[in-house]
Amino acid sequence: MKLSRKVKDILSWYESDNPGTKANLARILMEGKLGGTGRMVILPVDQGFEHGPARSFAPNPAAYDPRYHFELAVEAGLNAYAAPLGMIEAGASTYAGAIPTILKVNSSNSLSTTKDQAVTGSVSDALRLGCSAIGFTIYPGSEYQFEMMEELREMAEEAKAAGLAVVVWSYPRGPMLDKVGETALDICAYAAHMAALMGAHIIKVKPPTDAIFLDAAKKTYEKSPVPNLAELSGRITHVVQACFGGRRLVVFSGGESGTVDSMMAMARGIHAGGGNGSIIGRNTFQRPKAEALQLLSDIIGIYKGPAA
Amino acid sequence: MKLSRKVKDILSWYESDNPGTKANLARILMEGKLGGTGRMVILPVDQGFEHGPARSFAPNPAAYDPRYHFELAVEAGLNAYAAPLGMIEAGASTYAGAIPTILKVNSSNSLSTTKDQAVTGSVSDALRLGCSAIGFTIYPGSEYQFEMMEELREMAEEAKAAGLAVVVWSYPRGPMLDKVGETALDICAYAAHMAALMGAHIIKVKPPTDAIFLDAAKKTYEKSPVPNLAELSGRITHVVQACFGGRRLVVFSGGESGTVDSMMAMARGIHAGGGNGSIIGRNTFQRPKAEALQLLSDIIGIYKGPAA
Amino acid sequence: MKLSRKVKDILSWYESDNPGTKANLARILMEGKLGGTGRMVILPVDQGFEHGPARSFAPNPAAYDPRYHFELAVEAGLNAYAAPLGMIEAGASTYAGAIPTILKVNSSNSLSTTKDQAVTGSVSDALRLGCSAIGFTIYPGSEYQFEMMEELREMAEEAKAAGLAVVVWSYPRGPMLDKVGETALDICAYAAHMAALMGAHIIKVKPPTDAIFLDAAKKTYEKSPVPNLAELSGRITHVVQACFGGRRLVVFSGGESGTVDSMMAMARGIHAGGGNGSIIGRNTFQRPKAEALQLLSDIIGIYKGPAA
Amino acid sequence: MKLSRKVKDILSWYESDNPGTKANLARILMEGKLGGTGRMVILPVDQGFEHGPARSFAPNPAAYDPRYHFELAVEAGLNAYAAPLGMIEAGASTYAGAIPTILKVNSSNSLSTTKDQAVTGSVSDALRLGCSAIGFTIYPGSEYQFEMMEELREMAEEAKAAGLAVVVWSYPRGPMLDKVGETALDICAYAAHMAALMGAHIIKVKPPTDAIFLDAAKKTYEKSPVPNLAELSGRITHVVQACFGGRRLVVFSGGESGTVDSMMAMARGIHAGGGNGSIIGRNTFQRPKAEALQLLSDIIGIYKGPAA
Amino acid sequence: MKLSRKVKDILSWYESDNPGTKANLARILMEGKLGGTGRMVILPVDQGFEHGPARSFAPNPAAYDPRYHFELAVEAGLNAYAAPLGMIEAGASTYAGAIPTILKVNSSNSLSTTKDQAVTGSVSDALRLGCSAIGFTIYPGSEYQFEMMEELREMAEEAKAAGLAVVVWSYPRGPMLDKVGETALDICAYAAHMAALMGAHIIKVKPPTDAIFLDAAKKTYEKSPVPNLAELSGRITHVVQACFGGRRLVVFSGGESGTVDSMMAMARGIHAGGGNGSIIGRNTFQRPKAEALQLLSDIIGIYKGPAA
Repeated sequence: MKLSRKVKDILSWYESDNPGTKANLARILMEGKLGGTGRMVILPVDQGFEHGPARSFAPNPAAYDPRYHFELAVEAGLNAYAAPLGMIEAGASTYAGAIPTILKVNSSNSLSTTKDQAVTGSVSDALRLGCSAIGFTIYPGSEYQFEMMEELREMAEEAKAAGLAVVVWSYPRGPMLDKVGETALDICAYAAHMAALMGAHIIKVKPPTDAIFLDAAKKTYEKSPVPNLAELSGRITHVVQACFGGRRLVVFSGGESGTVDSMMAMARGIHAGGGNGSIIGRNTFQRPKAEALQLLSDIIGIYKGPAA
Repeated sequence: MKLSRKVKDILSWYESDNPGTKANLARILMEGKLGGTGRMVILPVDQGFEHGPARSFAPNPAAYDPRYHFELAVEAGLNAYAAPLGMIEAGASTYAGAIPTILKVNSSNSLSTTKDQAVTGSVSDALRLGCSAIGFTIYPGSEYQFEMMEELREMAEEAKAAGLAVVVWSYPRGPMLDKVGETALDICAYAAHMAALMGAHIIKVKPPTDAIFLDAAKKTYEKSPVPNLAELSGRITHVVQACFGGRRLVVFSGGESGTVDSMMAMARGIHAGGGNGSIIGRNTFQRPKAEALQLLSDIIGIYKGPAA
Repeated sequence: MKLSRKVKDILSWYESDNPGTKANLARILMEGKLGGTGRMVILPVDQGFEHGPARSFAPNPAAYDPRYHFELAVEAGLNAYAAPLGMIEAGASTYAGAIPTILKVNSSNSLSTTKDQAVTGSVSDALRLGCSAIGFTIYPGSEYQFEMMEELREMAEEAKAAGLAVVVWSYPRGPMLDKVGETALDICAYAAHMAALMGAHIIKVKPPTDAIFLDAAKKTYEKSPVPNLAELSGRITHVVQACFGGRRLVVFSGGESGTVDSMMAMARGIHAGGGNGSIIGRNTFQRPKAEALQLLSDIIGIYKGPAA
Repeated sequence: MKLSRKVKDILSWYESDNPGTKANLARILMEGKLGGTGRMVILPVDQGFEHGPARSFAPNPAAYDPRYHFELAVEAGLNAYAAPLGMIEAGASTYAGAIPTILKVNSSNSLSTTKDQAVTGSVSDALRLGCSAIGFTIYPGSEYQFEMMEELREMAEEAKAAGLAVVVWSYPRGPMLDKVGETALDICAYAAHMAALMGAHIIKVKPPTDAIFLDAAKKTYEKSPVPNLAELSGRITHVVQACFGGRRLVVFSGGESGTVDSMMAMARGIHAGGGNGSIIGRNTFQRPKAEALQLLSDIIGIYKGPAA
Repeated sequence: MKLSRKVKDILSWYESDNPGTKANLARILMEGKLGGTGRMVILPVDQGFEHGPARSFAPNPAAYDPRYHFELAVEAGLNAYAAPLGMIEAGASTYAGAIPTILKVNSSNSLSTTKDQAVTGSVSDALRLGCSAIGFTIYPGSEYQFEMMEELREMAEEAKAAGLAVVVWSYPRGPMLDKVGETALDICAYAAHMAALMGAHIIKVKPPTDAIFLDAAKKTYEKSPVPNLAELSGRITHVVQACFGGRRLVVFSGGESGTVDSMMAMARGIHAGGGNGSIIGRNTFQRPKAEALQLLSDIIGIYKGPAA
């Protein structure tokens, strides 16, 4: 496989990683319809853990079968498929080599009363299952944030030494944050930056709103306003900047179930802002497969077009 | 031993497991009167830990002797016998090879004021005692759920690497749940699904009621109603679906002491709904042995019959 | 040394243990004046930790010297001597081979405000000091019970792998229990049963009263009354039954300082009930040596006589 | 590279360290425009973690790119560059050998509600990235101080064994301290002394005010007054004295953004008082590069001049 | 070096220790002006950690330099010098072999709000620095006492295996104790006894007052009164008795700064009571060196004289 110039350039950002990790990043970046463009669409299926099976799969019961998601990701020509241990175990052999996988190694659930997650997978699991990366969620701002960061640090070090990539879901929450704060621009950029500082190769955050939450940050944002703040693309650009001036891959989640139009608009904003792509779960596997494939094809089309 | 087509098919679900684990799953599935059918009846004897010795064994004092339970399981032609360390140690040599054993590696008791369990056995113990699997209880929803899940993760990884199977007791409880919630259909399906996501080979849950507990889930269940919700078989089918669309083994506990009729009805519902069998403790060893053998024979008869 | 038929029979109960552990159990059971009978008298000296030096040794100042207790145990022809690290270290070389020792590996003290103990010795310590067993206290019912059980589990596994025996002091206490509850028959039997389930070779509990404490257990005890409940021997028999139907060794502590008559009566009850003996500390070493030797001789005489 | 007499003398203070650690200390002390003088200027860039990306880098957006800081440190002729994992990883290969680096291995953030930090890097990370030292923050006085000190102890032991130097940021805070207390002279000297006692090679504290905070210390300071207390240089001398009578390297942070004049005055006070230099972040990388280089050149000029 | 009969006798108390540990105990007992007498004077310098640098060293600024204390201990002909990591590192090479050192491996400070200490040194540190022993503080009675005891247990086991001696500072404090209780005779004897039970070779406690604190102990002390309770020597004898009937070395701290007369009186009481010596910090290094040497010489003179 000949790497594209774009992918070679991206790999050069990760100058301290070993060849194994670079190869796994390359596998993800070169896979599927967006292979070689530096843009990615990733399928994450951890909603069964987060919200329960029926809320996740009842709208499209075929999706109860873990093999469904491997197939969807392969057929749609996505870059990677991310899921917890059991979901990956249930198809890793059948689909070995068919699509890069990301083992989501920690998980929360709707019965929890704390802003924390349980570690539910390991680097050894990722290796024996042929995964290209581990995925880990941190909740910056939570009472458990330091423990989560320390768990990430240990697993990331082990993953990197084993030639795996590290994908960090950085979702701010906790006593200092309300619902507005969790997706405010300053908080989102801060969360993305912390993931970068922790050594993430790929950073996943939510698309930010135009709110500025921390009082201590307002002065800065008044003095150095974010260009094009009212547009998603402008806010994406700020988050990209917070990821080492654009030298770390950053993708954005699709959020709660939305209309096709809102999904397309979001992808356009991410692409125009210089984000590296989308990570979309419920909005794909909860639709009938044909609809999901069409939606993914359309989104991929946006990312294949010019960014401006 | 020639594996049945059914068992071969079930083993194919566990495509990421090593041959050692598959062999132990096969041993359990091929054992006893239901050997080869894909259905199982398992004898669990952890009630001495949970409720104390007299409440467990005084109704049938012969059961104070750990050898009684090995004999009961063997004579009844069951698939496996599950118990804590001391109970297994007390008969593992005498009955070596006579019945697959499951070492229950964590335990609670009636003197506890927290919804947690102590780890009371290890994978090394399971190996030196010739067990086919470890059994682990999680309490999804408990304040200790993440710690329990992390303990399970570590032990399951170690067990799988050693060629053992992993059986997970998934019993929801905790601050968000009342008694109705603990056995509500959505919660039960969720608990089973989480066990599957954690990598369990065999999942044990309680038979669900027809309640839907979580507000966030009610909309889903209204929009996508569970067929045949009023019947146990319909609810079992939903739980089976939550176990990777039926690609994980799921067995149901017998609950508190019931009449023979209620036990038979429950087995009929489990069987009709596609569940993989029963795990019955008190309702067998608290009866005189002849009665217990008759009851188990009758239940096995149900599972040998047609599922519909 | 030729093992008695009785000891061979007892060793057969421990069918999952390695020859090293069986040999150490045999050493304890074959030692002293009760050697070979299956009955034991053990000297425990952990009162200095529990109550302080003066409350323990001021009544008989010779007992401040750790060598005193080795000598007492040897001269009295006891089966074993149990003490914390420092006490064993101070005489283990002088008395090497003279008496089996049990290293008490956790300890509490009168200045504590929590129902927990500190781990104060290790399996490695027991091995380097030539001990035959480790001794560990659990407080079933305490807020710390699960941590204590997990510590016991780890140390017991290590001890068994190293050919040592495991003696468990099982003393119920905690938020659900008052003073009546701590020695009630149901609780005492439960505590003994839990120790057996944890894999203890020798179980130490307090002699039970005739109270039944847990509401949930009362129905059971009404339906299946304990024969001879009013007599200590009847209650001992119930505790013995809770220890795997009499297939685990169980000894009873002497309690607070009592009269010679009360001590003799207690030994008679234990013996008649089928208990395996006494573990007596304060009531021996706080008396002048001659008196202590006479008392121990009398108690041993009871255990050498017919059981009832 | 021939070491200066001054650096040789400083290395002699660290008589218990291995040649690897001494070599790394020498690398830092011999680097840049102050090489060989025993004085240092270090660039720390952990503000992105502490305050977020925009508050750190928006004033000078070129600084979003981690390579900017390596370049700034090299061009300015500084002694070392300190930053968290991600920042170092993003340039360690390009600038390998160009400037000694200090891996900041723990980090806090503005969303935290506790006075603690997460461990976010390791000694292995420092080694694979070619760093000369690890940097660790302790908060003496915090409810988490003992845990932080124990983390430091472990990492420092590992770092020293691997031939790395250990830099300790000692920032007092916690329930006994208010804002005055955190920078009071007695507290600052105490914090520096504790870092020295923990085995730090280089100690970083804030420049102290002339307040004496602890009642227990006031008597001492009245009886043995600090000479020249009103001048920064006098207070610096007291902190230097608290660092083993001047036999440990101690540098002072630049504090919040200040004017050029205030920065120069501070450097003059540090130099006159016998401090080993400045560690300046925001005040350099938040200015345009040319201004920052001029400021650093001027500060270096002070440290090259006579100390009195 | 030919060991004195007295030292040989003391070494015989430690019959379970390996030759390495015995050799290090011998080094301490044979060192200095009291070498061979079984009496010791030890210099401890952990006050910088406990009270801060100025409160410790401002009265005699030469003492800021760690080398001062090595010199003081050597010149005064003491038995050993004890200090935290940084203090030992700063002189261990220069004074290698000149005086046995004790690495104090845990430390508290005046900014703490909990009755706990941080582990700040290791057995590996003690070995690489050529120390003869580790020193560890426990606070019997503290909410953290069990954790501290477990840390001590681990480090003591490791130290003994490596041929080091173990010195335990046993300082009672916590919710059950007030200021009177912390130095009451029963509590002090209890604290010393617990250190002995934990396996300490040398025990350090404060000189006890004549108070009896625990109600549960009062009856004992009334029934078996401590001879000569009103005199320090009588109380010392009771503490010595609590240390295994005098078969463990026990030294007493000098307490807060006192007059020369009070210091001499205390040494006389310790000596007369059979204590093994003094451990004196502030009262020596806070005086001018000549005064300190004279005081130490006088105290040594007392210990060289007849005990009665």
